[in-house]
Amino acid sequence: MKAIEIDSRLKEDTIQLGSINGQGLLLLNNSLVPWFIVLPNTSETELYKLPDSERRILEKNINILSEFILATFAVEKLNVATIGNVVSQMHIHIVGRHKNDFCWPDVVWGQTDKTAYTESELRNILTQVIQKLGDSFTCVDR
Amino acid sequence: MKAIEIDSRLKEDTIQLGSINGQGLLLLNNSLVPWFIVLPNTSETELYKLPDSERRILEKNINILSEFILATFAVEKLNVATIGNVVSQMHIHIVGRHKNDFCWPDVVWGQTDKTAYTESELRNILTQVIQKLGDSFTCVDR
Repeated sequence: MKAIEIDSRLKEDTIQLGSINGQGLLLLNNSLVPWFIVLPNTSETELYKLPDSERRILEKNINILSEFILATFAVEKLNVATIGNVVSQMHIHIVGRHKNDFCWPDVVWGQTDKTAYTESELRNILTQVIQKLGDSFTCVDR
Repeated sequence: MKAIEIDSRLKEDTIQLGSINGQGLLLLNNSLVPWFIVLPNTSETELYKLPDSERRILEKNINILSEFILATFAVEKLNVATIGNVVSQMHIHIVGRHKNDFCWPDVVWGQTDKTAYTESELRNILTQVIQKLGDSFTCVDR
């Protein structure tokens, strides 16, 4: 797949993995917590205005990524949110949390601690995404 | 309706308004932002495990409350999230935000500023809820 349209601030903080059932899939470039972001295909900014078809796909993608994160990383809780106070492009956060992580039990939004992924960590995550997400996932052209 | 089961920490911070399409409806007792909380009927703690029937109702309730908040309060953005790092009972936050509010553009979770509602403010909100939510809403016994 080709790169999708992504807000410049989102682009700066994330790695574009590809798409999941046609919606964009990003990984926040912060290895302190597994933090995925889904981009529905919409110019709407509020979840309640997302057309039904995209909403069904989003729900499915939240489920797939929830199971993926719990199965792949050492986490015990998920945080799912759509905020968009800074970046208006609709994006849904799905974050894996553990009671020993860097900011538990606080939320991850607004925290400034950050450790970028190494090349090898990224390759490993991408391999897991490809293996576990199967046909749902399409890798971005690199 | 009778009072529903609510985690003691949630109870402490909120006002129980009643139910919306059978799911609990709370208002955070903080007039700094309009902050509603929906309680699906479930013992599950993760959104992706919420049974389809409850999830459909939750989606509908998110839509109703989104429109209600935008129509009733001076806000311009909604934040919708399920976190549950402290309170495990599944609860979904629907928060109205304005760029002049007390912590914009930061998220509301983790902020300590708080101004409890006055009796008259509360009465006013409850009146609006009753008028605008119509048959979806059932008031708790007071």
